[in-house]
Amino acid sequence: MTTLVRADVTDLRFPTSKSADGSDAMNSDPDYSAAYVRLVTDDDTVYGCGFTFTIGRGNDVCCAAISALAQLIIGESVDDLCNDLGGVHRRLRGDSQLRWLGPDKGVVNLALGAVMNALWDMASRRVGKPLWQFVADMTPEQLVDAADLSHLGNALTRDEALAIVERGQVGKDERLADLQATGYPCYTTSAGWLGYSDEKLRRLCQEAVDEGYQHIKLKVGADRVRDRERLTIAREVLGPDRKLMIDANQVWEVPEAIERVNELADFDLWWIEEPTHPDDVLGHAEIRRAVAPVRVATGEHGMNRVLFKQLLQAEAIDFLQLDTCRLAGICEILAVQMLAAKYGIPVCPHAGGVGLCELVNHVVMIDHLVIATSKDDRVAEYVDHLHEHFVDPCIVRNAAYTLPTAPGYSAEIKAETFAEFSYPDGSYWQANP
Amino acid sequence: MTTLVRADVTDLRFPTSKSADGSDAMNSDPDYSAAYVRLVTDDDTVYGCGFTFTIGRGNDVCCAAISALAQLIIGESVDDLCNDLGGVHRRLRGDSQLRWLGPDKGVVNLALGAVMNALWDMASRRVGKPLWQFVADMTPEQLVDAADLSHLGNALTRDEALAIVERGQVGKDERLADLQATGYPCYTTSAGWLGYSDEKLRRLCQEAVDEGYQHIKLKVGADRVRDRERLTIAREVLGPDRKLMIDANQVWEVPEAIERVNELADFDLWWIEEPTHPDDVLGHAEIRRAVAPVRVATGEHGMNRVLFKQLLQAEAIDFLQLDTCRLAGICEILAVQMLAAKYGIPVCPHAGGVGLCELVNHVVMIDHLVIATSKDDRVAEYVDHLHEHFVDPCIVRNAAYTLPTAPGYSAEIKAETFAEFSYPDGSYWQANP
Repeated sequence: MTTLVRADVTDLRFPTSKSADGSDAMNSDPDYSAAYVRLVTDDDTVYGCGFTFTIGRGNDVCCAAISALAQLIIGESVDDLCNDLGGVHRRLRGDSQLRWLGPDKGVVNLALGAVMNALWDMASRRVGKPLWQFVADMTPEQLVDAADLSHLGNALTRDEALAIVERGQVGKDERLADLQATGYPCYTTSAGWLGYSDEKLRRLCQEAVDEGYQHIKLKVGADRVRDRERLTIAREVLGPDRKLMIDANQVWEVPEAIERVNELADFDLWWIEEPTHPDDVLGHAEIRRAVAPVRVATGEHGMNRVLFKQLLQAEAIDFLQLDTCRLAGICEILAVQMLAAKYGIPVCPHAGGVGLCELVNHVVMIDHLVIATSKDDRVAEYVDHLHEHFVDPCIVRNAAYTLPTAPGYSAEIKAETFAEFSYPDGSYWQANP
Repeated sequence: MTTLVRADVTDLRFPTSKSADGSDAMNSDPDYSAAYVRLVTDDDTVYGCGFTFTIGRGNDVCCAAISALAQLIIGESVDDLCNDLGGVHRRLRGDSQLRWLGPDKGVVNLALGAVMNALWDMASRRVGKPLWQFVADMTPEQLVDAADLSHLGNALTRDEALAIVERGQVGKDERLADLQATGYPCYTTSAGWLGYSDEKLRRLCQEAVDEGYQHIKLKVGADRVRDRERLTIAREVLGPDRKLMIDANQVWEVPEAIERVNELADFDLWWIEEPTHPDDVLGHAEIRRAVAPVRVATGEHGMNRVLFKQLLQAEAIDFLQLDTCRLAGICEILAVQMLAAKYGIPVCPHAGGVGLCELVNHVVMIDHLVIATSKDDRVAEYVDHLHEHFVDPCIVRNAAYTLPTAPGYSAEIKAETFAEFSYPDGSYWQANP
């Protein structure tokens, strides 16, 4: 019997604030970071890697929470853990003492995401399948058992969830063949960070168009005049047919969001992302009614399934941008994907940062193969940063994520990265304290 | 000039799980804990104490977050900090990297609560006033500047907040005289923990009645038959006129909550507390419509002002039970009290645990003196646990909190408690690992 013997937790930070990569109206100087966990067993060939994503300070706080959660399963059988991932998720989420720190939100949910990401990586890796395939091969009953449907009872019953994934079995082979041929569409944010000059913005927009992107997203919300100037450049380069989205990163009050978005309506915007505080379900609903036909997107700070349930019930969003690390791993992601399918809202996951694209790559394939079963109005975020640190980096071709082929969840980070970017002891941080 | 030189952060845990004190349907074995911070200056007579409350595992995670936040103000002038508490609050809450871990929720908000509690303690202590008086003596403008009104703009404008606290100046002296004479009404939960025997329940209910309590709260939600048995005992002892409340601690799905509460309606319940997940604004609204005339209360897990805004907008609650440590200290509490005043919903704060009663004691006095200005339907929780560890413990007389008289926020814990209950090095934990 293989046993989980240890969880090695590492604080990895990358000095992205130096280049204004990732700068927006709320986040002026992010150092993209991973609170990383490697689950170690008494069999060297059996392990699992996972992480949660932060933007610098506080990554150590997530590491502490990951250690606290992982303690609860050390010494257990790998078979038992991997054969009941839904049960393990519910047990860790429900730990009666740690739950007080959330519940189901903030640091404890980020940490649970890291631990569950590592367990799903281990479970799929040890049977030699990429995570997307491991999940897509589950029976409908297994899928629903793995999903965390708790506190969703007034929006999605177990029977409704089962019906959704049973429908998801129809045409699966055809969708797989299509994904193998054309991948899953993505859009780029790499062009539009707030800290970039006009020249850099124009050049990056042109490069994106040349690479085949049909959607580009710009950060807005800092200065009214600059917002118009930047959107003018982007729309010029994109032409009238490609889709242009904006992202305010939560800086506006609800009335202010309505006013600001309506001022920009002449740019033919596809969506406004994070117009206000991410917890504000009713505020998003109010904004959505007032800015149509511009559509409303949010979710990268969507703390849990209960928030997404309400965003859907309140008809507050047009696009659901779940985050693969802010949600507590695949069990909670599956629940949110099923909810979105019931309400007919496309899931367009948030990505970027460090490693989020690697995880999203799997998550969109699962959604398309067995849950949403449609590509209509669906496009996943892609940012070309930091992929070089991953053993199995995502591959984007013709503005589309391609199907991962290596076993696992693509979450493993290279050994040499640890030596350089561990915080504060890695060589980079020792040289640049 | 006095300068903040250090933040001493201590993990304090009390072995309350040994006695089933605090046991309920969600929290089976809490060890009441404080993630405690003492702000140290270069003047021995100037200091501030604060804490956030947890129930055991994970208290260390809060300590890590408190240290990360406190780092941001070390080295600053005590005058500058204490003269602009609202500004300090906004700066710490908005730290662009730590904010990612919330925002405004979970561990980072609990930690911000601890730091801001210590700053408000310091600010009132150094001018020789108890915290309630320090706040009640502020001008309306100062009160509104201190309140964190951000992302409330579609529910409570600055002008509306100002009008509320300007009305709060009228009759303040009379209310103060009344508080000095009769205190602020409280209710007891000490009788009703789930883990107690019938005999203990009956005895504690009788003691509460003898002490003058008009309200008693029982934990429910574990077993249908036991719920009825326990309520039968409580109602027998209370008689028909005293108020009986129940608390399910979030364990129910929305449809289940409606069914279970309606089954218990014959006990003439005043409120059902935490019927479902604390984030579920729309779920609480659905429950409230379906269980009337039983009223709905929630808030001890109410993560921030944006959640409370929505609970009020959606007409989801009859009682707002803010927690003095889950909210980020007085700046966020003031905002929520102002919101509740605008919507006409009574604030009945959560307390118990370790030290929450000491803080609530101040918070209800502030509400009565300058914001809500009414005692109607208002009653604060009181649990008789662990007060012996505080330098300035709350005093309850005739089922009412009395006005604190010592300078500060009553958050300081005795030196001997540290030696015994620091975790894991205190003498208790060394002897009982």
